[in-house]
Amino acid sequence: MVFKLGNFLNGLTGKSLKTQELKKEKFSVFWGLPIMSSDAISSVAYAGEEILWILVPVIGLLSYKYMLYASLLIVFLMFMLTFSYRQTIDAYPSGGGSYVVAKDNLGTTAGLIAGASLTIDYILTVAVSASAGTAAITSAAPFLLPHRVGITLGLIILLVIGNLRGVRESSKLFGIPTYLFIISVLSMIIWGIVKIHFMGYTPVPLYKIPEASGNITLFLFLKAFAGGCTALTGIEAVSNGVPNFKEPSQKHAKMVLGLLALIVLLVFGGISYLATLYHAVPNSEVTVVAQISQQIFDKSIMFYVIQATTAVILVLAGNTAFAGLPLLLAFMARDGYAPRQFAKRGRRLNYSNGIVMLGLLSCILVIIFKGDTHYLIPLYAVGVFISFTLSQAGMFRRWIKSRGYAWRHKAAVNGLGALMTFVTAVIIGATKFAHGAWVVFILIPSVVYVMRKIKLHYTEAARQLKLPMDQKPKKIDFASQKRYVIVPIDALNKSFLKALNYARTISDNIIIFHVSVDDAATEKLLKKWHQYGVDIPIVVKKSPYRSIVGPLVKFIESEEYAAGSKDTVTVVMPQFVVTKWWGNILHNQTSLFIKTMLLKRRNIAIVTVPYIIDEG
Amino acid sequence: MVFKLGNFLNGLTGKSLKTQELKKEKFSVFWGLPIMSSDAISSVAYAGEEILWILVPVIGLLSYKYMLYASLLIVFLMFMLTFSYRQTIDAYPSGGGSYVVAKDNLGTTAGLIAGASLTIDYILTVAVSASAGTAAITSAAPFLLPHRVGITLGLIILLVIGNLRGVRESSKLFGIPTYLFIISVLSMIIWGIVKIHFMGYTPVPLYKIPEASGNITLFLFLKAFAGGCTALTGIEAVSNGVPNFKEPSQKHAKMVLGLLALIVLLVFGGISYLATLYHAVPNSEVTVVAQISQQIFDKSIMFYVIQATTAVILVLAGNTAFAGLPLLLAFMARDGYAPRQFAKRGRRLNYSNGIVMLGLLSCILVIIFKGDTHYLIPLYAVGVFISFTLSQAGMFRRWIKSRGYAWRHKAAVNGLGALMTFVTAVIIGATKFAHGAWVVFILIPSVVYVMRKIKLHYTEAARQLKLPMDQKPKKIDFASQKRYVIVPIDALNKSFLKALNYARTISDNIIIFHVSVDDAATEKLLKKWHQYGVDIPIVVKKSPYRSIVGPLVKFIESEEYAAGSKDTVTVVMPQFVVTKWWGNILHNQTSLFIKTMLLKRRNIAIVTVPYIIDEG
Repeated sequence: MVFKLGNFLNGLTGKSLKTQELKKEKFSVFWGLPIMSSDAISSVAYAGEEILWILVPVIGLLSYKYMLYASLLIVFLMFMLTFSYRQTIDAYPSGGGSYVVAKDNLGTTAGLIAGASLTIDYILTVAVSASAGTAAITSAAPFLLPHRVGITLGLIILLVIGNLRGVRESSKLFGIPTYLFIISVLSMIIWGIVKIHFMGYTPVPLYKIPEASGNITLFLFLKAFAGGCTALTGIEAVSNGVPNFKEPSQKHAKMVLGLLALIVLLVFGGISYLATLYHAVPNSEVTVVAQISQQIFDKSIMFYVIQATTAVILVLAGNTAFAGLPLLLAFMARDGYAPRQFAKRGRRLNYSNGIVMLGLLSCILVIIFKGDTHYLIPLYAVGVFISFTLSQAGMFRRWIKSRGYAWRHKAAVNGLGALMTFVTAVIIGATKFAHGAWVVFILIPSVVYVMRKIKLHYTEAARQLKLPMDQKPKKIDFASQKRYVIVPIDALNKSFLKALNYARTISDNIIIFHVSVDDAATEKLLKKWHQYGVDIPIVVKKSPYRSIVGPLVKFIESEEYAAGSKDTVTVVMPQFVVTKWWGNILHNQTSLFIKTMLLKRRNIAIVTVPYIIDEG
Repeated sequence: MVFKLGNFLNGLTGKSLKTQELKKEKFSVFWGLPIMSSDAISSVAYAGEEILWILVPVIGLLSYKYMLYASLLIVFLMFMLTFSYRQTIDAYPSGGGSYVVAKDNLGTTAGLIAGASLTIDYILTVAVSASAGTAAITSAAPFLLPHRVGITLGLIILLVIGNLRGVRESSKLFGIPTYLFIISVLSMIIWGIVKIHFMGYTPVPLYKIPEASGNITLFLFLKAFAGGCTALTGIEAVSNGVPNFKEPSQKHAKMVLGLLALIVLLVFGGISYLATLYHAVPNSEVTVVAQISQQIFDKSIMFYVIQATTAVILVLAGNTAFAGLPLLLAFMARDGYAPRQFAKRGRRLNYSNGIVMLGLLSCILVIIFKGDTHYLIPLYAVGVFISFTLSQAGMFRRWIKSRGYAWRHKAAVNGLGALMTFVTAVIIGATKFAHGAWVVFILIPSVVYVMRKIKLHYTEAARQLKLPMDQKPKKIDFASQKRYVIVPIDALNKSFLKALNYARTISDNIIIFHVSVDDAATEKLLKKWHQYGVDIPIVVKKSPYRSIVGPLVKFIESEEYAAGSKDTVTVVMPQFVVTKWWGNILHNQTSLFIKTMLLKRRNIAIVTVPYIIDEG
C-alpha cells in the first residue's frame, strides 16, 4: 500500500494550479456576493431578536415601536458604512479593509489594532458559526447531541477543504445555500406583509407579551441598538477582498457591496417589520424568525425550508472569515507584521496557510469550549466595531488631509460614521465588559505586541542580511587553501565510506572523529578500523553523558584542532535515507540533531551525503 | 524571558546522569519490592470480589466454601509460578521474562507473541489503573467527576515524570504508599480474625445473600477461578527486571519474588478468608474490601485509611508497567524487533523513550474511552496468561532438552504450570471473548506482524550497509577531479554570499541557480546581480507551479548540466539560523524541504552553510 501525499492532496483539494491561472480564480459578482456576505446576511437572522431581548422585558408592547427606530438607525448606519466602504474601495484598489486604511491614515499602531481586532474576530466567527450550525442540526436530530463537538469540527474541516479547493469552487459550494436562504426569507417577508395588509389576517401572537416594567430611556434604547448592531458584522469583508474580484475588480466589489447593503436592508428591515406586525416575543426555546415563519406558514413545508436554510447560512457565516482572514494575514505578512508564510500562495493559489491556521485555531476554541461557544458572541461585536471605527476615522483623516473633490461632504460621511461606530463600540464594550468583552481588551494589545515583535525580527534580519554592493566574493587560492574536514564515525559501513569518499574529493586533510558512549562498542570499532587498514587518523573522545554533539563541538573549538582559527570547518555526515516513510521512525535521528546543533556555529559547513537504503 | 529546555528538564526529571552512575541507579530489595509488586498486590484488592461475582448469584451461601477452594488453587498456581520464575531468574541473569524465555526455548514466533501480549497488557494496565485510581478519588469527591479525564491524564503524567526521574527516586515516591497499603490490609486481616475467633464477635452481613439458583458445576468453578486469576497479573515483572536490581541482582530478584508471593498469599488469602467469615456480598456500590473493613472497623479512621491506600495502590499498579515495558522494549529493540531508540538510555539512564511512549499510548486510551476504561479489564487477563503459558512452556522445553540436575522435577513443575496457565488462558479467553477479549486476538498478531516488519527492515538495512573489508576509499586525484557545484539563489544577500564563498573554496566550477516563481522578483534579482558584477553565470528556470525543488532536480538531471554523468553534484545551500527558537516560525522552511527532497538522489552532496541572525 503506497501512500502518495500528492495524490491525496489532489483528491482532497483539486490539482495544483499554475501561477498564471490566478486570474481565472476570481469571483464574479454573482458568486462573489454570497461568499463575501454570508456573515453579514446570517447575522440578520438573529439581530432583530437581540433588540427584542433587551426591550421586551422592560417596556413590553412598546418595544415594537422602538425596535423599528433602532432598526432604522442600524440600517442608516449600514448605508453610511456602505458609502464609506465604497469610497475605501475607490481609494484602495488593492484592497485591505480596516487594517490598510487605518495604517495608511492613522499610523501603524491604529492599523495593527484594527488588524488584531479583525484577526480575533474572524477566528471567533468560525468557531461560533460552526457551533450555531451544529446547534441547529442537533435541535432537529437530538440523538446527535453527544457528538456535538465532532460534528462542529467536521463542519469546520469542510469549510477548510472547500476553501483550500479555491475561490471559484468554494463560491459555488457555498453560494447556492446563501441564495436559497435569501429567496426563502424574502418570500416569507412578502407573504407575511401580503397576508396582513391585503388579506386582512389578524396575527395571533404565540407567546404573551410581558407587561411593561419601566420606561424607555436613552440608555436602554442605545443598548438595544448596540445589540442589533451584530447585523453589521462582516460588512468589511468586501473592501478587504477587492483583489479577489474579477477585473474591473473595484467596480465589481462596489456592486457586491451595494447588493449586500440592499439584501441586509430587505432581510433585516423586513424581519424587524414582521416582528412588529406579528408581535414575536423572544424566548430561549423558539427563535423570533421561527415564531414569525410559523405564524405565516403554519408549519407547512416553507416553515422547514426557512429553518433549514437558516441553519446552513449560520455555518456559512464562518466562510466569510475564510475569505477575509487569509487575505488580511497576507497583507500584514507583506508588511512584515505576520509570519511571511501567510503571504505565500498554496497549490490552489489561495493563501492556504491562513486557511489552515484559521481552521486549526477555531477547532481548538471549539474543543476548549466543548462546542458550547455561545458566550464567545459578545467578544466579537467589540472587535468588529473597533475596526470599523479605525477604518472610518482613517478615511475621515484622509479627506481632511487631501482636500480633494467634495472633501467636506466625504469627510462628513466618514466622520459621522466614525463617531457612530465609536459610540457603538463603547456601548457594546461597556454593556458586555463583564460578560467576556474584557478578554478582547487583553487579547488585542497582546496580538499587537506579537505583531510588533515579528516586525522587529524581520527588520533586524533584513539589516543583518543586507549585502553592501562593494563586498565581493573572496578570491580563492586553491593551492594554499587549508580545508579542515571532519568525518564523524559511528560504525564502519558503506554509508560511512560514501561520506569519507566525498570528504576526500574536497580535502586531503581529513580527521575521522568518534564519540564513545560505550567502551565495548568503541573497542570493536577501532579494531575493525585497524583491520581495514586505511591510513587516516581516528580521534576518539569519551562522552560520559552520552551526548554526541558536545564532544564534537568541543573538539572543533579545541586547540588541538584548527588551533582556534577562524577558518571554516567542514563536517561531512553520512545520512541514511529510507525509501519508505515509516523507515524513518526506526532510525535514531541523531545526525539531524547534531546538524541542528552544529549550525549554531558561524565557521562551519555541514555536508550531508545521503546513503539510500532500498526496500523493494 | 529565556526558555532553556535543559533547565526545564533538569527541574522536571533531575539532572543528567553519567553512564558510570548506572550501578547506583538500581533497586535494593526493600525499595524494589513495591516497584515490582504494586500491580500484583493491587489486583488482590479486587480478585476475591471477581470470584464472588461469579459464584454468589448462582450458588448463594455455598459460594464462600468454593471461594476458598478457588483461592487455594490460585495460591497454589502462584507458588508454582514463583518457583518457575525463580528458575527463570537463575537461568536468565540478564532478565527478560516471558519474551526472552519463550524466544530462547520455543523460537522467535513464540517470543514475539509473548512480547506482543505483554506490550499490550502493560499499556492497558496503565490506562485501567489510572482510571481506577481516579474513580476512587471521585467517589470521595464527587464534584471532581466532570474532570475525570483530566485527573486520569494528570495521574499518568505523574507516573511518567516519576519514572523519568529514575528508578531510585521513583521507588521512594511509589514505595511508601505500597507499604502503607500492605500494613493497613494486614492489620485489617489480623484484627478481623481476632475479633471473631478470640472476641466472639458475630458478624452481621451488610447485604442479604441471594438464594441459590443452581448447583456448583466444574465450569462455574473454573470460571470463578479464572476471575480470581487477575490476582496473578504483574508477577512476571520481577524476572523481567533482574538487571534493575543491585548486585548480586539474581539473588535480590529472587528475594523480591519470594516476598511478593508471601504478600500475595497473606493479602489475597486473608481477604478471601475474611470474605468467608464476614459473608461479603458483591454489588456495584460498595466493594467487598470496603464491606469487610466497615464490619471490622465500624467506619472508624482505619476504614478510611484502607479506602485511601487502596485508591493509591490502584494508581501505582500502573507503575509496574512503567518498570516492565521499557525494559521489555529495550530487549526487543536490541534484537531488532522494536525501534532501536527503545534500547537507548536517556538523560537519567532509564529507557526514557519507552516510558514516554507508554505514557502517551495510555493517555490516548484514556481519552478515547473518556476515562471509563473499566471494560478494558477483560482484555488484559488474556494477554497475561498467554505470556505465562509461553514462558512456562519455554522453561519446560529447556529442562527436557538440557537434562541437567533434577531436570525431571523442574520440568514437572514448569510443565504443570504451563498446562494450568494454558487452561486458565483458554477459560478466560472463552468466557470473556464476546466482552472484548476478541480484540486481543486481533491485536497480538498485528503487533507480531509489525515487529517482524521492523526486524526485516533492520536486517535489510544492515545488509545494504555492510562494508566488504576489501572495498577501500577511492584514490582522489585533485588535479583532474571535476567538482560540480550549484549554489541556489533566492535573494542577493550576505547569507547567499557566505554560501558562495564556501562553494568557491571547494570548486571553481560553480553555477548559480535561480528558480523563478515571480517574474518581477526575478527581474529585480538579475538586475542587481548584473550591477554586483561578479562573473559567475546565473541559470534561471521558471516554475509555473511555484515548486522550487522540481526545477532544481530537473536541472541536475538535465543534459545541459553534468551531462547525466554519475559524478556527485554538490549543492551549497545557505541557511538562516535564528538565535531565538520562535524565530524559526517566521521563516519559510523551504531550504529544509529542498534538502529533504534532494537527499533522495544517490549522486548528491548537500552543503549547509549557516548564517546566524543575532537578536541581542
